[in-house]
Amino acid sequence: MVDLPSKETAFIDWYLAVVEAADLSDKRYPVKGMNVWTPYGFLARRNLDRVMVREAEASGADPVEFPALIPATEFAKEKEHIQGFDAQVYWVTKGGLSELDVPLVLRPTSETAMYPIFALWVRSHRDLPLAVYQIVNTFRYETKTTRPFVRVREIHFFEEHSCQVDEERATERVRANLAAFRRMATAFALPYLAIRRPEWDKFAGAHYSVALDAPVGEARTLQLGSVHHYRENFSIPYGIRYEAADGSQRPVHQTTFGLSERLLGAIVAVHGDARGAVFPSEIAPYEVVVVPIPAAEGGEAVDRTATEIVERLRRAGRRVHLDDGEERPGAKYYRWELKGVPLRLEVGRREADGRRATAVDRLGTKGTLSLETLEAEVADRLAKFDTALREAADRRFRAAFEVAANLDELRGSKSVRLVGWCGREECGHAVEQAIDGALLGTPEEGLPFPLDPPTRCVACGATDPVRWAVAGQPL
Amino acid sequence: MVDLPSKETAFIDWYLAVVEAADLSDKRYPVKGMNVWTPYGFLARRNLDRVMVREAEASGADPVEFPALIPATEFAKEKEHIQGFDAQVYWVTKGGLSELDVPLVLRPTSETAMYPIFALWVRSHRDLPLAVYQIVNTFRYETKTTRPFVRVREIHFFEEHSCQVDEERATERVRANLAAFRRMATAFALPYLAIRRPEWDKFAGAHYSVALDAPVGEARTLQLGSVHHYRENFSIPYGIRYEAADGSQRPVHQTTFGLSERLLGAIVAVHGDARGAVFPSEIAPYEVVVVPIPAAEGGEAVDRTATEIVERLRRAGRRVHLDDGEERPGAKYYRWELKGVPLRLEVGRREADGRRATAVDRLGTKGTLSLETLEAEVADRLAKFDTALREAADRRFRAAFEVAANLDELRGSKSVRLVGWCGREECGHAVEQAIDGALLGTPEEGLPFPLDPPTRCVACGATDPVRWAVAGQPL
Repeated sequence: MVDLPSKETAFIDWYLAVVEAADLSDKRYPVKGMNVWTPYGFLARRNLDRVMVREAEASGADPVEFPALIPATEFAKEKEHIQGFDAQVYWVTKGGLSELDVPLVLRPTSETAMYPIFALWVRSHRDLPLAVYQIVNTFRYETKTTRPFVRVREIHFFEEHSCQVDEERATERVRANLAAFRRMATAFALPYLAIRRPEWDKFAGAHYSVALDAPVGEARTLQLGSVHHYRENFSIPYGIRYEAADGSQRPVHQTTFGLSERLLGAIVAVHGDARGAVFPSEIAPYEVVVVPIPAAEGGEAVDRTATEIVERLRRAGRRVHLDDGEERPGAKYYRWELKGVPLRLEVGRREADGRRATAVDRLGTKGTLSLETLEAEVADRLAKFDTALREAADRRFRAAFEVAANLDELRGSKSVRLVGWCGREECGHAVEQAIDGALLGTPEEGLPFPLDPPTRCVACGATDPVRWAVAGQPL
Repeated sequence: MVDLPSKETAFIDWYLAVVEAADLSDKRYPVKGMNVWTPYGFLARRNLDRVMVREAEASGADPVEFPALIPATEFAKEKEHIQGFDAQVYWVTKGGLSELDVPLVLRPTSETAMYPIFALWVRSHRDLPLAVYQIVNTFRYETKTTRPFVRVREIHFFEEHSCQVDEERATERVRANLAAFRRMATAFALPYLAIRRPEWDKFAGAHYSVALDAPVGEARTLQLGSVHHYRENFSIPYGIRYEAADGSQRPVHQTTFGLSERLLGAIVAVHGDARGAVFPSEIAPYEVVVVPIPAAEGGEAVDRTATEIVERLRRAGRRVHLDDGEERPGAKYYRWELKGVPLRLEVGRREADGRRATAVDRLGTKGTLSLETLEAEVADRLAKFDTALREAADRRFRAAFEVAANLDELRGSKSVRLVGWCGREECGHAVEQAIDGALLGTPEEGLPFPLDPPTRCVACGATDPVRWAVAGQPL
């Protein structure tokens, strides 16, 4: 049995213990911050990827894959971008036994890999919009403390890149990406805020950046992903131009949309509890685990029934696992709760004889289901489980925010804070100092709960213009 | 219109032209041998991966992913292995602005990444067998001429690794891998020979290696993948030991099974023809393309019918593309033949009025199908197309081999050759010199056609022991 630390009083320790005990990642690999995706963690990731692929393709993006290595010469073309990254990249300097003429960067993100090729792909307005995405690993020479899924040096990454005819179309693509993420977040059962980052915290090279932030307890927030409007900031240095209908040559306007394995970290952090991980059914490595309970007599009927259940659910397209190992049933229940399986079906002698199973979901709801209507009842229980999981997360989400009227109220804050902000950088930094965290920015699509417009800036007291801004401690 | 070189007289040029014209890969990326997976090529690759995942998991392997970077210290542990690779690896020597204390190798294959962790995962005979696989990119600092899919520097790669209690179980896993590949090859419609490589050509560190070789015209062969028996060659240096039932500590026996994007190259090379690529339906990015034929009158009925066909086939799980662009129908037919789509459905005014479509498969079989039975007729036509494709490939496969009785018959050979071989290295090299190629080894699972045992070694004339061996020119 694993003794998990308290999620409330020792959040980080709890998180690390759950990741390890649920066997989602093995961090004993001999390079710090590069972890092994175990089979169980990999299955969860595969389900995440499936949701991302589905929503990306529904919003009109095509899959591609660009090389992992970027020549230093291309990498250097966008000055602001390289300044944001050059202290964080891995350099390949040798091939075989000799030095490379041009060193190669292991992709930290793919702007500088893709854009020289986009310049070849885009010729005319008929080639636009161009929207492609890839799911690849990116690399950052991270110097801060690394943590599985949340801050690692090899990052499983989704990135969409689009080229548009003008700024307005690019703005529309940003909105389409935000809408796609809203659909994904339903599958992940993750409440979040889309927040436009302040100027000093936007992505290197972006015109503006909208981050997707989730509160993960106390004042902590986790950035799940981001959507960027690049305007012409990359297309000019990389020469991505098109011939417009009027015959003129124009640089395209670009956008990107990035998500990463942090989503898995957020799912563990947001839904997990004192008994371990809790997975929403779309992401769960197994949606259902079937545990046969050994019987002195009638053991064959138990095994037969358990096998029937597994086979029927598999045929119905469910991810289901039969745990017919030699442990006691109680030890199995404990382990599958730790591993966050949404629904457990127990089959003992009584259940086998009565053509039914005992169903217990990961939130503790218990009942009996009849084998006659197995598939429909499992679907129904999983849907109810997902709804309950989402509602509980939504309640905690709304409770995570508190309004602060002045800088004093921010000090020692144990919540994510909503503050009035005049938009000036020095007031932003005053907020950051008071909360010992970051001014995350201004909500892009609404607030976590209904609220009248703010009346004055939390720092300088200015009354106009002033907007709600969010402040917290990014994990 | 693209003018393809002749497949018969200019095979390599033909291959390169088809890859480019079918838009499977973009080789204009500024690092030689690192190509861009275009959307169309990526979709084909995704279908290949799906087949590999299905068969790997059916044979009991679990998915994992190990880091791409391997510390030089781990990489050096297996001497024979590093000697086989050290002239071919990329070295990461810098992180951010500083030199790394321990340089990192970009994985050329993952033995040295996985095995230190296997040493932690395997404790007892109850942990065995351990069988995991990953689909990742590997990197080779290739100095020969690079060619899309066939010889590249960043390689899309499938690798299974297993740990077994003893040599016999490891041999059984080798056989299970060969059986899994046999099933995959049906989906790829690729005839091949499993060939045990001679000692001097086995994988660095292997006890023995079985390669999967496909003839691709004249004497040329393409290695599609390989299965290796490692015995204890890696488990001893990496300390992968288990406690046996009798309490003793024993090193595991290991196997690996590797496949790569070369499969896509082989599919292009084997099935392609004078009009371009030809994809078996399981691998085709689109199984069906629907082309509406503009009509002066009744154009709406045509569009409505085309849309109905696309929607119904999609609902039936087909990958289908509607080509409603502005080109002439003839130009569309030409392009989708170049791109190798198995089945084209044409819908004009007459078809719309008669609730039918004209069906033309990529091998030229033409007919009419009724919308009433659309889904079933499409399934039937695709199945017949796949069978015809496989049969044609099988015929060419059998015709690709010729028996040679002596070294003279090998010189200037335009076929893959079967020769009697005594097994001695010097006779092997004599064959290689005569054919200006390689002695690929001895068939592991049978010959391409029925043949009596050979009577004497093609080189030295020895009569006993002598076995059939295969000689060709690896691409």
